[in-house]
Amino acid sequence: MTVGRRIWAIAEGYIPSGSVSDAHDLISHEAFCVLNAGEEPAEITVTLFFTDREPAGPYRMRVEPRRTQHFRFNDLTDPEPVPRDTSYASFIESSVPVVVQHTRLDSRDPHIALLSTIAFSEG
Amino acid sequence: MTVGRRIWAIAEGYIPSGSVSDAHDLISHEAFCVLNAGEEPAEITVTLFFTDREPAGPYRMRVEPRRTQHFRFNDLTDPEPVPRDTSYASFIESSVPVVVQHTRLDSRDPHIALLSTIAFSEG
Amino acid sequence: MTVGRRIWAIAEGYIPSGSVSDAHDLISHEAFCVLNAGEEPAEITVTLFFTDREPAGPYRMRVEPRRTQHFRFNDLTDPEPVPRDTSYASFIESSVPVVVQHTRLDSRDPHIALLSTIAFSEG
Amino acid sequence: MTVGRRIWAIAEGYIPSGSVSDAHDLISHEAFCVLNAGEEPAEITVTLFFTDREPAGPYRMRVEPRRTQHFRFNDLTDPEPVPRDTSYASFIESSVPVVVQHTRLDSRDPHIALLSTIAFSEG
Repeated sequence: MTVGRRIWAIAEGYIPSGSVSDAHDLISHEAFCVLNAGEEPAEITVTLFFTDREPAGPYRMRVEPRRTQHFRFNDLTDPEPVPRDTSYASFIESSVPVVVQHTRLDSRDPHIALLSTIAFSEG
Repeated sequence: MTVGRRIWAIAEGYIPSGSVSDAHDLISHEAFCVLNAGEEPAEITVTLFFTDREPAGPYRMRVEPRRTQHFRFNDLTDPEPVPRDTSYASFIESSVPVVVQHTRLDSRDPHIALLSTIAFSEG
Repeated sequence: MTVGRRIWAIAEGYIPSGSVSDAHDLISHEAFCVLNAGEEPAEITVTLFFTDREPAGPYRMRVEPRRTQHFRFNDLTDPEPVPRDTSYASFIESSVPVVVQHTRLDSRDPHIALLSTIAFSEG
Repeated sequence: MTVGRRIWAIAEGYIPSGSVSDAHDLISHEAFCVLNAGEEPAEITVTLFFTDREPAGPYRMRVEPRRTQHFRFNDLTDPEPVPRDTSYASFIESSVPVVVQHTRLDSRDPHIALLSTIAFSEG
């Protein structure tokens, strides 16, 4: 079972610094979810783009065959953390076809707001 | 009238266990909506992927010709229910072209949040 | 300036019957927005699909050249109104290429929730 | 690193005039985010379409190589500001491939609502 593409991009990125909750599932966060439905591991490379500085990365991660993994941009630290309250975009390359979806939970306010969209894909 | 594709994927999946309401339309849920605009029944097979175990499924359902059906992941039970508070992804195959859209209603908080996106398609 | 496609589909449709406001912009509604960036009028035909009855329509409307129009499913009446609290899907055909986006504003609760996604396109 | 397309369209546009906050990040706004992952500057031209008047524009902006920029429709003024409480659509052309995503934050109500979708692309 193989589905997806090797190149993905998310043009909208923003992690609010404030949250009304410290619960891991309710803290303000931005995530990209990767589905690797195939039989080979997916070696993933993420590059982050900003408005007024050179790109950050590569961030590297792996998604095992027949697995999905939901990565929070909040949790990326190597080679550097993702700045809060700052606009960014992301470029995601995979060694095998995968599907990428983008989600944000905004809990600056006690009543959360959600957004999600399939990322832009090529290749 | 035929529209759509045979292979669809949703990389983001998560059913919160909490809801402030027990009303069927306001309980926290995640759904995939299938439109079969054609003249043949659509035999659908769903496989669920997780972070740290083998995939679940296949779940089987049918959408009659010239009909739409909104399936809640919450309601899937055969071969096994979908775990709450757990990240998953889904792979959806149809015997004929269909259109698939993904929606979540989150009512952990008294003020609901919504997300929706067209799924990723191929084939 | 021409952009878009002639066939569009939205698999997710649902108009909540309740609203906390009667203001036209804040009443619960579901809309499809059509952009006709070209030089010819777009003759649009909408067919609605349901879970347990035959499709409704065709609903006919026109978008003039170099214009956009945001149609609310709530406002469709000819040949019949769209039932509330009922799942439906829509199939949209245009005589010229257009772009279609789907939006819902849910105001069952005093705090509105929004969703939007580009529709599925072909042709 | 090049990703994207040269022609993008967003059929849904609406800037609510009301906001409960004057904070720049929480004021009601609608934005399009552009990722230019390539090595050439992207010269961007935006045209806005309305329901009952001729299009406005072109609005011109540039995104430097290896940069992302999040433009608020609220902030466009040349050749004319974007009217509030009015439906519009946008057509975005770039001199090089870019990725465009559409986001709205609605803060008419003290509890914000968010929507986002990848724009429609061609070319």
